[in-house]
Amino acid sequence: MARRDTRSLILQVSLDLFNQSGEPNVSTNLIALEADISPGNLYYHFRSKDDIALDLFKQFLGELQPLLHLDESMETDVEALWLRLHLVFETMGRFRFVYRNLGDLKIRMPDLGTAFSGLLKMQHDMLTQLFSSLESSANMTCSDLEREALADNMLLTMTYWIPYAELRKDSGFEDGSVLAAAVSRTLLLIAPYLLEPDRSKLTSLAGSYLD
Amino acid sequence: MARRDTRSLILQVSLDLFNQSGEPNVSTNLIALEADISPGNLYYHFRSKDDIALDLFKQFLGELQPLLHLDESMETDVEALWLRLHLVFETMGRFRFVYRNLGDLKIRMPDLGTAFSGLLKMQHDMLTQLFSSLESSANMTCSDLEREALADNMLLTMTYWIPYAELRKDSGFEDGSVLAAAVSRTLLLIAPYLLEPDRSKLTSLAGSYLD
Repeated sequence: MARRDTRSLILQVSLDLFNQSGEPNVSTNLIALEADISPGNLYYHFRSKDDIALDLFKQFLGELQPLLHLDESMETDVEALWLRLHLVFETMGRFRFVYRNLGDLKIRMPDLGTAFSGLLKMQHDMLTQLFSSLESSANMTCSDLEREALADNMLLTMTYWIPYAELRKDSGFEDGSVLAAAVSRTLLLIAPYLLEPDRSKLTSLAGSYLD
Repeated sequence: MARRDTRSLILQVSLDLFNQSGEPNVSTNLIALEADISPGNLYYHFRSKDDIALDLFKQFLGELQPLLHLDESMETDVEALWLRLHLVFETMGRFRFVYRNLGDLKIRMPDLGTAFSGLLKMQHDMLTQLFSSLESSANMTCSDLEREALADNMLLTMTYWIPYAELRKDSGFEDGSVLAAAVSRTLLLIAPYLLEPDRSKLTSLAGSYLD
């Protein structure tokens, strides 16, 4: 196998194992075994498991960043809002090992901790921009206090829907039902601040998610 | 010191250290040192650090349970709702080590995991009961979908406000500002479903929390 392919294979196998079992429970030996390569070959590509985790985190950021960037000229309607949130949650779900052990990863890898703080800030900015776009098109109305609490509540839900689902032993990371519940819950956080007919439209989108 | 006093002292010192540094970072030797007793004396009272953590968790449940029980004849107005939530969050804050390392504690101590699932169920029932009491007094109106999402969003916030504050490096666990932000955020989750004048009353309570 070419070097580049082996590297990609190690990352893909690691991501699957980290997501399934939690990063602390996966050894480099297990990764080599599942990838069907020798441990020596693995260490040729990555010095440690932390290096693999950091690489995957960078990949996660790379996929998430374009979704957090809003084109200023973009028309924001409830369908656009819904689609954007769906894609953000879906990306988080694919890299969910980050959220399963966030506290632990942050302490062990200060670089990841710093990058994660940056991510929170980007997500906060994206939400603020979404709200002001919705407000300027007169579909949304809320006070400063409400807007700040809404951004904060959405950020909290975005950061913890994965450990929350695991805590409750919700099955359905594979079939997408956990993702659907998270997006639905988040849409219902925004809905009360929308004017009709958008409020009903978003509420019905949130409901149809659970069917 | 009498046996009973030593036991209480160990628990109090452990709670402070666990809250400050996270339970995984506190050794029984450190607890003995801070309590100014010999490690042997500590082991006379508790076989392991897990035993101390379990005892503290039971104490936490003992203090929380009366707050989760709603008297059926109780009038629920927004002040009663606010006070109840405030006391629940305050109790969580005093035992915040549980929430700092929930995923880890649950795996290490299956008994604690089971008890925690029971706690989530009790909190869910309390919220449902609160909502139906508010709805029957005609101060609240929401659909089944909205009510279920509201309970779920509140439960998520209740479970993760502590790690969220730590993630953002919010200072203020000691001066109460982190607690105030959490209660305020939760009140603003409910407010949109209340009718006037209760909606404004609750929103202004939520705002005054942050002053």
